[in-house]
Amino acid sequence: MGINALLERSRTLATPGLRAAVDRLAPPMDTVAAYHFGWIDATGRPSAADGGKSVRPALALVSAEAAGATPETGIPGAVAVELVHNFSLLHDDLMDGDEQRRHRDTVWKVHGPAQAILVGDALFALANEILLELGTPEAGRATRRLTSATRKLIDGQAQDISFEHRERVTVAECLEMEGNKTGALLACATSIGAVLGGADDRTADALESYGYHLGLAFQAIDDLLGVWGDPEATGKQAWSDLRQRKKSLPVVSALSARGPAAEQLAELMAADVKKSQQEFEDFDEEEFAARAALIEEAGGREWTAAEARRQHSTAIKALRGVEMPEVVRGQLIALADFVVVRQR
Amino acid sequence: MGINALLERSRTLATPGLRAAVDRLAPPMDTVAAYHFGWIDATGRPSAADGGKSVRPALALVSAEAAGATPETGIPGAVAVELVHNFSLLHDDLMDGDEQRRHRDTVWKVHGPAQAILVGDALFALANEILLELGTPEAGRATRRLTSATRKLIDGQAQDISFEHRERVTVAECLEMEGNKTGALLACATSIGAVLGGADDRTADALESYGYHLGLAFQAIDDLLGVWGDPEATGKQAWSDLRQRKKSLPVVSALSARGPAAEQLAELMAADVKKSQQEFEDFDEEEFAARAALIEEAGGREWTAAEARRQHSTAIKALRGVEMPEVVRGQLIALADFVVVRQR
Repeated sequence: MGINALLERSRTLATPGLRAAVDRLAPPMDTVAAYHFGWIDATGRPSAADGGKSVRPALALVSAEAAGATPETGIPGAVAVELVHNFSLLHDDLMDGDEQRRHRDTVWKVHGPAQAILVGDALFALANEILLELGTPEAGRATRRLTSATRKLIDGQAQDISFEHRERVTVAECLEMEGNKTGALLACATSIGAVLGGADDRTADALESYGYHLGLAFQAIDDLLGVWGDPEATGKQAWSDLRQRKKSLPVVSALSARGPAAEQLAELMAADVKKSQQEFEDFDEEEFAARAALIEEAGGREWTAAEARRQHSTAIKALRGVEMPEVVRGQLIALADFVVVRQR
Repeated sequence: MGINALLERSRTLATPGLRAAVDRLAPPMDTVAAYHFGWIDATGRPSAADGGKSVRPALALVSAEAAGATPETGIPGAVAVELVHNFSLLHDDLMDGDEQRRHRDTVWKVHGPAQAILVGDALFALANEILLELGTPEAGRATRRLTSATRKLIDGQAQDISFEHRERVTVAECLEMEGNKTGALLACATSIGAVLGGADDRTADALESYGYHLGLAFQAIDDLLGVWGDPEATGKQAWSDLRQRKKSLPVVSALSARGPAAEQLAELMAADVKKSQQEFEDFDEEEFAARAALIEEAGGREWTAAEARRQHSTAIKALRGVEMPEVVRGQLIALADFVVVRQR
C-alpha cells in the first residue's frame, strides 16, 4: 500500500469513530468540535475542509498490524490519539494566539476562548473514555501509555511557552521540549495499536522508540516550515514561529554556532525578548525576513534538515528489534519517509 | 469521628499524595499549581492558605471504608478526584472571568491565562496517571468512573455557560446542569474508594447515587451562597452569580413562579441578557440587590433551601440499600449534614 492509500485508509477507518465520539458531546461543544475537525464551516454548513494529515491514526492502525492484529483493532487507539492531538491543538492555538490553522480561523477566533478551552477538555476526556470502555486489560495498558504521553505533551507545551521569554535555549533543551511536545504522542500512536492487539511491553517499547524519533523528525520539518514554509501550503502566516519568538531548532542551532551571523542574530534576539508582544507583532515583514536570513547564514536551516534525517534514520533503526510482517515494516518506513519530505 | 476530625483526616491522608502528584509537573507548572492549592503565595513563599473544604477527599476515604477496606485504600481515589476538581476550578475561573477564589486572586489573574489552561490540563492528566499506575483491575474501573464523571462535569460547565445567554431556563434544565457540573464528581468521590477497595458495581452505584444527590444538595447551597453569601465567608464577590448572569436554582425557580415579583424579575432578566458583559458589570450594586430581593420575593430563596433539604434526604435514602459498618454510615450522614449547613 502506498503512502496515500495508507493515509486514506486511516481516514476511512478512524473518521467514523471520531465522528461518533464527537457526537457524544453536549451542545454547543459538538458543533464547535465539528468545526475544528473541518466537518462543518463557521455557519454550521457541512464542509470537507482539510482535517489534517492523519499521520497519527495511520500509525495506530499499522501499529496493530505490527503485532499481528487487524488494522481495525487499532481503531480505538487511532481515535483516542487523534482526540488527544486535537485537544492539544485547541488549547495551544488559544495559548499561542494563533488565528489560523489548516487555512481556517481557529476555534477560539470563531467560537471564543471559553469554547476552545471546554471542547479541548472534552476531547481529552473522550479519548480516555473511548479506550476504557473497551473494558479489557489491553485497553487499560493503552490508556496508561496515552496518559503518560499526554502528560509529556503538556510538559512540552509548558517548556515551549517558557522558552519564548528566554534569551538563550540550548539545542539539548529544545530537543527535550520537542520530544515531549511531539515525540511522546507519536510514540504512543505507534505503540497503541500493538498494545490493543496484545503485544508485549518489549515490542510496544520498540515501536514507541520508532515513533518518538519519527516525532522528532516530524517536528524538525515542522520547525523548518515554521520559518520558511509557504503560507499557501502550511495554512499558517509566513514566519509564524518567528512571530511568536519560538525557540525552535533552526533558531537554537543557529544561536549555538559561531561567526558574525550567529552573533548578529543573538543580539537581535536578546533585544526581542525584552519587547512586548504587541511591539513585536508590529514589526515590518523585513524584520522577520532578516532574522530568517541570519538563521540560514548561521547554519540553522541546514542543521535542522540534517537533524530530521538523523532522527528519521534512528527511527528506522529502532524497528530492527521488532519482529513483524515485512509488508508492515515497509509501511512504517514509508510513513517515516513521508514525514521528512512533507511540505505542510 | 466528628465532621471536623473527618475533614482533617482526609487532609492529613490525601495532601501528601496531592503534593507528590503536583511535584511531578514540569516548571513552572509545579509552582502555579502549588499557588492554586494555597501551599505558596504569589511570590513563591510558603503559605497555609485555605485549600478548600476537602469534602471530596473525605468522601473518597469513607467510601473505601464503606466497602470494608482501610481509608488508605481510598487515597489514590481521593487525590485523583481532588485533581479533577481543581482542574475544573482552574479552567472555570478563567472561562467565567472570576478574579477571586478562597480569598485569593485566581491563577489566571496571577500567572496568566496560558498557565491556567496548561496547569488545568496537567492536573486532569495527573488524575488519570495516579489511578492507572496502580495497575490493578480495580484501578481501571475507578478510572473509567472518573472519566465518565469528568465528561459530565465538562458537559455541565458547557450548559452553565450557555444558560448565561438564554432568557429562560427551566428548573429541570438547571437541575440537569447541576447534576452534571457538581453531582457527577461528588458521586465519583463517593464510589471511587469503594471501587478501589473491591466493591461490586451494585454497591458502587448505590454510593454514587448518594453522592449524586449530595452533590445536588451541595450545589443548591452553593447557589444560595452565590446570591446571598457573605463575601467574608465565601471568599467571592457579593452577588457573584448575579454578576455573571448565572441561571442558578434561586433564579430559575423564581422565574418559574407566578406573581408580580416573578414578572418583574423576568422583565429585568430579559433585558439583562441583551447587555454586553461590560455594560452588565458596570451596574450599580443596587441593581444586583434589587434582583436578589425580587428572587427572594418570588420564592426562589425558599425553594432552593427546600430543594437542598430534599436532595439531602434522597442522598441519605440511597444509602439504605448498601451494607456497611454502622460507624461508616454515620460518617456519610455527618458529611451530608455538613454539606447542607455550610456557610462557605
